[in-house]
Amino acid sequence: MTLPIRPDLAGLEPYGAPQLEVAARLNVNENPYAPPNSVVDAIASAVRKAAEGLNRYPDRDFLGLRQDLATYLAAESHVDFLEPRNIWAANGSNEVMLHLHQAFGGPGRKVLSFAPTYSMYPEYARDTLTDFVTLPRREDFSIDIEAAAAAIEETQPVMVIVASPNNPTGTALPPEHVSALVEAADRVPGGCLVVIDEAYAEFRRRGVPSAATLIPEHPNLAVSRTMSKAFALAGGRLGYLVAHEPVIDALRVVRLPYHLSAVTQATARAALAHHRELQAQVDEIRAERDDTVAWLREQGYTVADSDANFALFGPFEDREKVFQGMLARGVLIRVTGPEGWLRVSIGTPQEMALFRSALLEVTA
Amino acid sequence: MTLPIRPDLAGLEPYGAPQLEVAARLNVNENPYAPPNSVVDAIASAVRKAAEGLNRYPDRDFLGLRQDLATYLAAESHVDFLEPRNIWAANGSNEVMLHLHQAFGGPGRKVLSFAPTYSMYPEYARDTLTDFVTLPRREDFSIDIEAAAAAIEETQPVMVIVASPNNPTGTALPPEHVSALVEAADRVPGGCLVVIDEAYAEFRRRGVPSAATLIPEHPNLAVSRTMSKAFALAGGRLGYLVAHEPVIDALRVVRLPYHLSAVTQATARAALAHHRELQAQVDEIRAERDDTVAWLREQGYTVADSDANFALFGPFEDREKVFQGMLARGVLIRVTGPEGWLRVSIGTPQEMALFRSALLEVTA
Repeated sequence: MTLPIRPDLAGLEPYGAPQLEVAARLNVNENPYAPPNSVVDAIASAVRKAAEGLNRYPDRDFLGLRQDLATYLAAESHVDFLEPRNIWAANGSNEVMLHLHQAFGGPGRKVLSFAPTYSMYPEYARDTLTDFVTLPRREDFSIDIEAAAAAIEETQPVMVIVASPNNPTGTALPPEHVSALVEAADRVPGGCLVVIDEAYAEFRRRGVPSAATLIPEHPNLAVSRTMSKAFALAGGRLGYLVAHEPVIDALRVVRLPYHLSAVTQATARAALAHHRELQAQVDEIRAERDDTVAWLREQGYTVADSDANFALFGPFEDREKVFQGMLARGVLIRVTGPEGWLRVSIGTPQEMALFRSALLEVTA
Repeated sequence: MTLPIRPDLAGLEPYGAPQLEVAARLNVNENPYAPPNSVVDAIASAVRKAAEGLNRYPDRDFLGLRQDLATYLAAESHVDFLEPRNIWAANGSNEVMLHLHQAFGGPGRKVLSFAPTYSMYPEYARDTLTDFVTLPRREDFSIDIEAAAAAIEETQPVMVIVASPNNPTGTALPPEHVSALVEAADRVPGGCLVVIDEAYAEFRRRGVPSAATLIPEHPNLAVSRTMSKAFALAGGRLGYLVAHEPVIDALRVVRLPYHLSAVTQATARAALAHHRELQAQVDEIRAERDDTVAWLREQGYTVADSDANFALFGPFEDREKVFQGMLARGVLIRVTGPEGWLRVSIGTPQEMALFRSALLEVTA
């Protein structure tokens, strides 16, 4: 049989890190703390109620969830001007990004990002036949903002996508750099949207503001977030986006109808109602991150400054060998980032103790 | 601000039927029966268990769910040769269809279908820049299979998509016609996949087999299903596809990682475990459908033979006026299909009594 698979997809492997049962799963930046009982109870109870009406399609516009997300952002990021019409949500920020590419990308259109960065970005572009262009980050993983503005002028992308904190480096983008990118994007004749991917925003160090605070001044700025990390809800798949209404309206055209199930809406809303409680776990993870970074530096490693729940460290002459040695000791980390670097997600104190002893053994 | 929206999307409205609170919601082919308590309990309990581990990403390959779907199809459709590797699933058959178009469609590629049919088909094509071509159905909404084979030879599509039972007409495709389409597709030099969309398959009249029974003979045949209708799970969003492994492997490349949440997987598996109980409701809906079709014919209407949970009837000189009159009486039906026709979803006996009395009043 001949299958008419798209030629550029033939032979490709699906995206995905190993899913292994090991003592310390520190490879996909999950929150190591299971949702507390109060949240589990709230989710079970909300889903039971939703289940009673599952024969009906869900609210296609998920207005209750959008309101709850707006309320949360006002509390967490002091972004108090948001209405439901400024909020979008989908099954993971993955799907939010796909919607953005479907609405604004396509053949002959370019998306600009800054490498190294999240390895799904080229896949969103590939899946929508959009060109994906990168400008390298500096040695310390910050963005050379003048070079970025020049690249925007030259490339004329439809979107500039920046993860902040960046994955896999942990690097946050200062607000003045966000503004500089947006101003450069403003000068693109066909229009250009700047998308700041704040999947890890809740882990940022004190004093680092969310890019969402700049939205009132910038109609072409959008900020995406996820409940996977800070809300300990990776299994719940809820990503969202904050933007001016015309951006959201464009996403509504390309979304599949009823893309967010009633169960997903109920689960997310139950977790949002408990955000203050979940924030306590975020604080623990931040403290553990700072300890991990400090310890790695004490061991002589170079560690990128991290505003996220992971740390990129190196250099290693043979990082694959270190990865395998760690795995043999029950510690699953990630081979990602530039050659010679490894990434570790921040786990519980027990998991990080295991990480430290395994690393000492492997590199002894 | 200039937004770089894809030019062919500019000004379009999002897909979607009205979501209104009325006495009888008979417009989107929902199952009128809420899930029974046993199913609600099973879902709540399964989701509670899943919620305890929501900090982790879900099983990206949803192997448990795929096994359960294979087991269900063996029981429901006597399709007993399926392994998990023959099953795909996504957030509604909507998303299954999007994956198919992402893997096999694209610029310069064509999808062939038979009009009138499901109004989302052109949207999947549009969203993936695929050309959507239709051949008209006969007056009785069946497919002229010789003309279809000729159209396949001439058009050389990458996919032929047929809803069976068809929406909005209710028309089932006989198995010998499925085979004829597949054989014509086999002769397309670049390869062509025949996709039978069996969203409403469980409502088929006795003796109508599922196209899935033909899969062993046909490597380029795929059958999609949904839990929205027969499982009373429209709010749960679970669609699935049965096909040979190379087809599934192609979909794995374009799916977003972790597209099916742990909550969705738990919900679907809980409902699948209760399929025999839910089948009793399907039997009631089928009986009510046959009564509705008979009654409409008694009133002098032309009604398409229906193997689904809805009926297409007409003709009306001003169907919009009839629709509005019905709505004013609390009965929401659908203006769809060829000019002059209306579609009514099969509700409970009470809802159908309301439908009948409203129609008599409106057309008096």
